[in-house]
Amino acid sequence: MKIQRNKVVIIGAGQVGSAVLSTLLSSGSLAEIVIIDKNEKKAYGEALDGSHSTAFAYSPNIKVKQGTYEDCEDASIIVVTAGPSAKPDEVVDRIALAQKNIEVVKEVMEQIITYTMDAIIIMVSNPVDILTYYAQNYFGYPVEKIFGTGTTLDTARFRRILGQKYLVDTKNVHGYILGEHGKTAFATWSSSNIAGVPIDDFDIIYDDVPLDKEAIVEEVKQVGYEILINKGYTNIGIAKSVDRIIQAILINELSVLPLSTTLTGEYGIEDVALSLPCIVTKDGIGRRLEVPLSVDETSKLRASADFLRETFKKTYKGPEPKKV
Amino acid sequence: MKIQRNKVVIIGAGQVGSAVLSTLLSSGSLAEIVIIDKNEKKAYGEALDGSHSTAFAYSPNIKVKQGTYEDCEDASIIVVTAGPSAKPDEVVDRIALAQKNIEVVKEVMEQIITYTMDAIIIMVSNPVDILTYYAQNYFGYPVEKIFGTGTTLDTARFRRILGQKYLVDTKNVHGYILGEHGKTAFATWSSSNIAGVPIDDFDIIYDDVPLDKEAIVEEVKQVGYEILINKGYTNIGIAKSVDRIIQAILINELSVLPLSTTLTGEYGIEDVALSLPCIVTKDGIGRRLEVPLSVDETSKLRASADFLRETFKKTYKGPEPKKV
Amino acid sequence: MKIQRNKVVIIGAGQVGSAVLSTLLSSGSLAEIVIIDKNEKKAYGEALDGSHSTAFAYSPNIKVKQGTYEDCEDASIIVVTAGPSAKPDEVVDRIALAQKNIEVVKEVMEQIITYTMDAIIIMVSNPVDILTYYAQNYFGYPVEKIFGTGTTLDTARFRRILGQKYLVDTKNVHGYILGEHGKTAFATWSSSNIAGVPIDDFDIIYDDVPLDKEAIVEEVKQVGYEILINKGYTNIGIAKSVDRIIQAILINELSVLPLSTTLTGEYGIEDVALSLPCIVTKDGIGRRLEVPLSVDETSKLRASADFLRETFKKTYKGPEPKKV
Amino acid sequence: MKIQRNKVVIIGAGQVGSAVLSTLLSSGSLAEIVIIDKNEKKAYGEALDGSHSTAFAYSPNIKVKQGTYEDCEDASIIVVTAGPSAKPDEVVDRIALAQKNIEVVKEVMEQIITYTMDAIIIMVSNPVDILTYYAQNYFGYPVEKIFGTGTTLDTARFRRILGQKYLVDTKNVHGYILGEHGKTAFATWSSSNIAGVPIDDFDIIYDDVPLDKEAIVEEVKQVGYEILINKGYTNIGIAKSVDRIIQAILINELSVLPLSTTLTGEYGIEDVALSLPCIVTKDGIGRRLEVPLSVDETSKLRASADFLRETFKKTYKGPEPKKV
Repeated sequence: MKIQRNKVVIIGAGQVGSAVLSTLLSSGSLAEIVIIDKNEKKAYGEALDGSHSTAFAYSPNIKVKQGTYEDCEDASIIVVTAGPSAKPDEVVDRIALAQKNIEVVKEVMEQIITYTMDAIIIMVSNPVDILTYYAQNYFGYPVEKIFGTGTTLDTARFRRILGQKYLVDTKNVHGYILGEHGKTAFATWSSSNIAGVPIDDFDIIYDDVPLDKEAIVEEVKQVGYEILINKGYTNIGIAKSVDRIIQAILINELSVLPLSTTLTGEYGIEDVALSLPCIVTKDGIGRRLEVPLSVDETSKLRASADFLRETFKKTYKGPEPKKV
Repeated sequence: MKIQRNKVVIIGAGQVGSAVLSTLLSSGSLAEIVIIDKNEKKAYGEALDGSHSTAFAYSPNIKVKQGTYEDCEDASIIVVTAGPSAKPDEVVDRIALAQKNIEVVKEVMEQIITYTMDAIIIMVSNPVDILTYYAQNYFGYPVEKIFGTGTTLDTARFRRILGQKYLVDTKNVHGYILGEHGKTAFATWSSSNIAGVPIDDFDIIYDDVPLDKEAIVEEVKQVGYEILINKGYTNIGIAKSVDRIIQAILINELSVLPLSTTLTGEYGIEDVALSLPCIVTKDGIGRRLEVPLSVDETSKLRASADFLRETFKKTYKGPEPKKV
Repeated sequence: MKIQRNKVVIIGAGQVGSAVLSTLLSSGSLAEIVIIDKNEKKAYGEALDGSHSTAFAYSPNIKVKQGTYEDCEDASIIVVTAGPSAKPDEVVDRIALAQKNIEVVKEVMEQIITYTMDAIIIMVSNPVDILTYYAQNYFGYPVEKIFGTGTTLDTARFRRILGQKYLVDTKNVHGYILGEHGKTAFATWSSSNIAGVPIDDFDIIYDDVPLDKEAIVEEVKQVGYEILINKGYTNIGIAKSVDRIIQAILINELSVLPLSTTLTGEYGIEDVALSLPCIVTKDGIGRRLEVPLSVDETSKLRASADFLRETFKKTYKGPEPKKV
Repeated sequence: MKIQRNKVVIIGAGQVGSAVLSTLLSSGSLAEIVIIDKNEKKAYGEALDGSHSTAFAYSPNIKVKQGTYEDCEDASIIVVTAGPSAKPDEVVDRIALAQKNIEVVKEVMEQIITYTMDAIIIMVSNPVDILTYYAQNYFGYPVEKIFGTGTTLDTARFRRILGQKYLVDTKNVHGYILGEHGKTAFATWSSSNIAGVPIDDFDIIYDDVPLDKEAIVEEVKQVGYEILINKGYTNIGIAKSVDRIIQAILINELSVLPLSTTLTGEYGIEDVALSLPCIVTKDGIGRRLEVPLSVDETSKLRASADFLRETFKKTYKGPEPKKV
């Protein structure tokens, strides 16, 4: 079989797009990274800056360039980071942001489908669930090939907070933040564990400070905002999430990650995109796993679904979906 | 021997400090990264953002935190990125910038020496040669333990430009940009080669477009500015340089890198800091190598030295050096 | 803090020692690897072969050499692979093998303690639980600094078999093989799960072939023997286990791994070494975690403990332990 | 573009094949590794042993299996390690070995071409130049898609020996061993350098022990034999060479490596396979570079070519080549 060069196209050269570029430069699996932005100067500057890292020992000699949508034609993966994000000092009107970014995604998707129906599309822009739902259902693109980063980063934050509390490697903390990447997200406390020890038992046996579950979930939800007001934007964590997802795709690793996709009956929910643990393959989303949820967790999932469905309805006023 | 945790302290949480943090998060050699900034909110935001990347498979569970100068006490390496940098739209008054950042480095060094005389200090702030000279000679810190990134990034850019012209891995392009990290820098054309083929021969045999050496050196010098005006700042390339240097130090790799240090007679030059190829050890700078220079290259090196010595004199009006 | 070079000493240059050397050569955290064997020629050959891998881009310039026990003096970690192993065609007399290798470990430990009481000692030789118990309790070496690879590899095999059955990344399969690294080992089925879904549920929902737990545990126990009779020895899997453990130690990752240590009352068991999930720190074994066990699993753990205690008594006829 | 899974097929499960498997398991770029051997048990044992390394954090979840030639059909790269190798205690009759392995390669190539004409074929079996020439010219396979590891490992050994003499990172030692992978190999002393400093100058300035060029080349040639008699075989170094080559191919890195290919007039030589620096692309061998050679080096290259051409004639008595 002829060897195919793995090529990633990053759409959007803002702080997130730039951090994704920077992180992917160390990936040994990629032959080419292309960055696109309406602000061509910004994309050009990022590509130039990134390209200078290839001369060092240990650095793969990756082709890096500013590109155009034509580059999607032979892309393996497209990462969508385009569109405005929340600013530290503004009261976010979520509906208004959603409306703006639906316009952005419309333009992005219309461009992409001119060139490819094969690439995996990773939605990063926010509100990620709304935009993923829109991208998956309104452009005739194969649904399994589009998904959002969803609660991948929230889950990482959840595990980090617990790992720090219990002084244990975050990679040994298990549990998810599921549902919306946003205010209605919730933790799967009932099945969370540290290296196999249920979280409640672990807390009793190994820690003096009692576990305040509500405070921790609140912290998970606030920490992005905390970064935003202190640093002005968030980019490192999300870039590493995207890197992890891309690695799983490129070698068909079958990894389970909490990604945002349109449900088709899981927990009785459909026609809304939100995060459940998904098996990721080289062809996109494989199975969505139904982890056990307590009654409370299930009702939180439903509430999250209802909120997102409602929000989409309020936000999107265009034509009917174009299902495949 | 008891195992020592490798700890890096990054001073300055601007775009460069943030990119250094982000890049080091993937290093498998570090146990702890601390970021310090006068703007404590910024440092806190960066640390928080960075810390959320440790939950992913393949990501080392590194301790990441906002810190204070006290953290230098058990640091292995300190990376100085503090101080204002050039802005895209301002005419840079180099002397003024140097004066400002000498004040910054004064404060930074005085803080560091309160806590350690053992850590390796990597100077990244600009003008890097001026600041390296100042830090190496005015604080009684062991000279071999302080150096500047110098022309490491310029050399990477030089190799990248040639690698792209000749369609060859930049890791197989050999040659340096030496002297000042700035306008008086020059290329060691006389010994440059592609995988062992002298650059002039390579150009004749393998390329139709004749090599315009002056244009390429000009491009190398301009490309940082080019990134600056297009992207607003440069950070990815320099962060990867710092990462490469740190890897070489931590495992005592004895790698040769064009770093800025105060010369002691090389090519007849002394009492000025600029870049020559240096062997890097776990204890800092080992040998400085005298690569063969043509008459023209030697005179450029001298001019670079004279310019830097002169600039320092114009800039610094404080007390005499405190040599070790 | 002065930078310490991370140095690993491998004792034993057989197939396992050689594979550990080969795997560690790609670790970016090590400055030096030393290999020791009574058969000095073999150790010399391995060191020479290994040292030639350092010239390639992406390969750290590690110092590699054949050494002597004196090298333990400044070692960070010592990996013990010495002693005969089971051969494909022989009926293994476990007691006889244990007796032989207790002699080997006696010699190895007496040498080590001449030079260091600080290095972390990883026991790989078999029967690993017997040898770990002996090394931890009879030489006055700090107990937390000695442990055996135990069921780390068995657990990896368990997860691989399930990962292949369910077509999911082995890194998302959770559950342990605990107890003896040998015939009395058992699986923690009651808390095993795939990405948070209990294994029984997962099997019902996502797989047509019913889970035969006994057959899988039998396969886990047999697969080492299977490799042995087909390949003549096992080395790749165990080498990667050791590599994982070393990475966790060097950066104080606080990872949880099922390692063999002398229990001190966990599940009411003491004075015998076997595998429970342990938190690994730069100083050796931190907490041993008590994962929930079903009644059946607990009784299997006790049986494993009894068998190992009994075996040690039958095997070892020397002087009393030298506890710290 | 649909994502292609990168798949490597290793032919031959001896010590080299096993070490290649073990090394490739850490490569983040591969989705599948298949190992084939006439001794099916051996291949099965290796695949089983290798597959157990995928459960660890940091280990890619690669598919690993024992396979058949059918697996070549969708292979990206095929590594040929089949055939007997020299044994420590036998006087090697090079012609006899060549004849035996030509038979092996005949069978291997006839099998491969039944399934693919697209995969890159890396010849590792010895005598590698003879076998590469045969494979490139007698089976109608695209010539640029077949090459031998040639003097890649000899060059690594050369650089290592010099790096150790001068206490400098081997990655900063430049120079090649070219020609035959065997007795007639020679060093390109005239263009060798340490980080840009010609080797003769470096030796005078930075080392007290004068450089004995003949002794070093002799050592390079003997060191493989030295490993052979001490360890029984060589495998670690060659496995890391193959890993480096594969990385360069998969991401189209355009790296320069001294590989064995049939020359077509370089230095006036043709119709014989030996090592010159080659640019490696995703489609196989790109340009062969003519590095400058002294008169003495040129005559050694010619002698090497003559010897290899002669050896092939003495060895191969089959039908005429089947050129493309």
